[in-house]
Amino acid sequence: MVATDIATRVWNHTFKLDPIVRSLLDTDFYKLLMLQMIWGLHRDTDVTFSLINRTRSVRIADEIDENELGAQLDHARTVRLTKREMIWLAGNTFYGSDQIFRPAFLDWLADFQLPPYELRRVDGQFELLFHGRWTDTTMWEIPALAVINELRSRAALRDYGRFELDVLYARAKAKMWEKVERLRQLPDLRITDFGTRRRHSFLWQRWCVEALKEGLGPNFIGSSNVLLAMDTDVEAIGTNAHELPMVMAALARSDAELRDAPYRILKDWQSYYGGNLLVVLPDAFGTDSFLKCAPAWLTDWTGFRPDSAPPIEGGEKIIEWWKRHGVDPREKLLVFSDGMDVDGIEATYRHFAGRSRMSFGWGTNLTNDFRDIEPHGGSGLEAISLVCKVVSANGRPAVKLSDNPAKATGDPAEIERYRRVFAAPQNIPRPVLV
Amino acid sequence: MVATDIATRVWNHTFKLDPIVRSLLDTDFYKLLMLQMIWGLHRDTDVTFSLINRTRSVRIADEIDENELGAQLDHARTVRLTKREMIWLAGNTFYGSDQIFRPAFLDWLADFQLPPYELRRVDGQFELLFHGRWTDTTMWEIPALAVINELRSRAALRDYGRFELDVLYARAKAKMWEKVERLRQLPDLRITDFGTRRRHSFLWQRWCVEALKEGLGPNFIGSSNVLLAMDTDVEAIGTNAHELPMVMAALARSDAELRDAPYRILKDWQSYYGGNLLVVLPDAFGTDSFLKCAPAWLTDWTGFRPDSAPPIEGGEKIIEWWKRHGVDPREKLLVFSDGMDVDGIEATYRHFAGRSRMSFGWGTNLTNDFRDIEPHGGSGLEAISLVCKVVSANGRPAVKLSDNPAKATGDPAEIERYRRVFAAPQNIPRPVLV
Repeated sequence: MVATDIATRVWNHTFKLDPIVRSLLDTDFYKLLMLQMIWGLHRDTDVTFSLINRTRSVRIADEIDENELGAQLDHARTVRLTKREMIWLAGNTFYGSDQIFRPAFLDWLADFQLPPYELRRVDGQFELLFHGRWTDTTMWEIPALAVINELRSRAALRDYGRFELDVLYARAKAKMWEKVERLRQLPDLRITDFGTRRRHSFLWQRWCVEALKEGLGPNFIGSSNVLLAMDTDVEAIGTNAHELPMVMAALARSDAELRDAPYRILKDWQSYYGGNLLVVLPDAFGTDSFLKCAPAWLTDWTGFRPDSAPPIEGGEKIIEWWKRHGVDPREKLLVFSDGMDVDGIEATYRHFAGRSRMSFGWGTNLTNDFRDIEPHGGSGLEAISLVCKVVSANGRPAVKLSDNPAKATGDPAEIERYRRVFAAPQNIPRPVLV
Repeated sequence: MVATDIATRVWNHTFKLDPIVRSLLDTDFYKLLMLQMIWGLHRDTDVTFSLINRTRSVRIADEIDENELGAQLDHARTVRLTKREMIWLAGNTFYGSDQIFRPAFLDWLADFQLPPYELRRVDGQFELLFHGRWTDTTMWEIPALAVINELRSRAALRDYGRFELDVLYARAKAKMWEKVERLRQLPDLRITDFGTRRRHSFLWQRWCVEALKEGLGPNFIGSSNVLLAMDTDVEAIGTNAHELPMVMAALARSDAELRDAPYRILKDWQSYYGGNLLVVLPDAFGTDSFLKCAPAWLTDWTGFRPDSAPPIEGGEKIIEWWKRHGVDPREKLLVFSDGMDVDGIEATYRHFAGRSRMSFGWGTNLTNDFRDIEPHGGSGLEAISLVCKVVSANGRPAVKLSDNPAKATGDPAEIERYRRVFAAPQNIPRPVLV
């Protein structure tokens, strides 16, 4: 007897929508930490987020059907936090602390729903905008990116045969496991999954997280993905993002307020969080500028996350800053999270070994590295540099400079003004890989 | 670890076409028997087949997407006999005879491909026509019907949830097994699956055949479906169909030739086949008329298959004919195959027990009985009376009268002529259930 489960097969073959976002916890942990602060301090601020495809050569809107994208976004809007998820958020210990989320915030969060979106096709790209309260729009960043990236994967896989698919995932697993075997050679490695937004697919990210858990044991310290952290019983990892200084900067009424914005928001942050959640993200308007004026109280923070400078160069600048302030970098933490892969992790790990504590946030190259393994030989599965950024706050334009001018976003005139105010040296643009 | 086979899941969820017809043997055995004779004696005859939905109240073309239907028919046209299938046709013993298919016929069959079709939507129905050589068009009957019926099932199941599907098939299995348990009470039952054309789906038919094999043991004598007979190792069952006398009648040049057509084709048949394949289908133009003029040599045939008269009435007429010709009906076979279900099988079995040998061809009510078990409570899964009939031969209109006037097909003026020639008494139309 050929045992086919007819019900399951009919289910698979009559399906219309295979939802990509099935939980509001299928997002990065830092979004929830930031959200609590935004809700506490900025609940009336309006912030618009926009999709930006830095890999212009890839015409996403030619790859993905607009209706399919709309259906996925619509579905994500129907998702609510479940009781089980709320209980876990309230009861779990994050970064060693109980009750990191305040009851009033959780009460509000229980009814959270993703706000409306605005979608258009423009010249082979999607114009995807989220207007509204910052407390609402901020939560679109990760699901919007995950949806588009997974729809790209699905489009690329549509014409694959059964065996090609089997071979593709076999190769992807083999490739991923070779990385695990190399990383096992680094005895004090601390590494985290940061790959939600750029993942090939949810199921593939889950496989990667489970593989890291088995392959690296305690050296794998967790996932930025809250749902996967909950489901696979690892730590939820993350602190804060560029949107905080970007919104503060956009709201600044004067150049002086603008210059102070990156520090002011960190003051706010430490009124909400302590310990290992105190990690500075210094590069929104250039790390050099940030460090030049950084107040001494930031030496009390656990560490820095250089996110757009080359890791060794960025790390050295921060170590120098710590030393200048009489702080022993060996007590401090450097978090590397910009386009890391095994080569860069090894080099950075060896460079700073014994000089500072380190951890690595492994993103795109963990959860979406299908380069050179496509049985079709195509490039449809290659990751692209897709982001979802703040473009305005209360109607005022927002800007990011970063340490890599290729990652700068915002109105050119405003970028010039920011460059002047933050007196950033003219960094040489490097290609943004992922 | 949640073990999801990602390759299989992506395969299921990116699929475009789930082909319904995957083998040219997924057809009724009698089509191959008839085909060999048509190829031998009538290879230059053109015959047009047409889809006819006798259940006009069901607007098939509103239920099924025309493109989806076209894609399935196109796919069926790409299917060829495989080597394994050809070897089996040549090497298997059918009805106790070796090499029932002649080598020259098999050589020709090896390259067989379904011919083009003509598809239009007309007032909520599909106009689906197959023009061309009889040797080609005849082979569309079963796949065309199976495709449309399975597409109807898929359409009806599209909005089902996972559990509703699970429950639906659980109920269908339970319902089917209750029938098996009742049929087990009939010790000398001989029963066959005749349900290919009207099946709910291929997988469901396969389940039913396997269930009958286990549940009825040797009382289940086989399946009309050649592919399932091969795959599940049961006998392939079937003899001939109405299309033979219908084409002969259409080609008749005079009323005398017309009157003789049903007998002439049986003469041809016995030049090709013997033994248990000699089963008369008497009702194309009315059983009474057929028996009135039936030649004595037909008493040598194994049996009759009354296919549109009520089974007891039809069987009695044939027994009476045998007796009139001095034949002992206990040596002969009655095959009942018109809209049978367990009640009718039991009643017919008991009525003729000890008076004649019997076998039952169980069709729609075996492979497509989802009445009253739909969790949705709808009727989208109810079988309809869909046939694919000869409408013309070499440009001349074809007619079927049958014992049930509701099953008559053809041009009204021609029907009148046939009624006159065959002097069929005015039977009272009975509703055609399936």
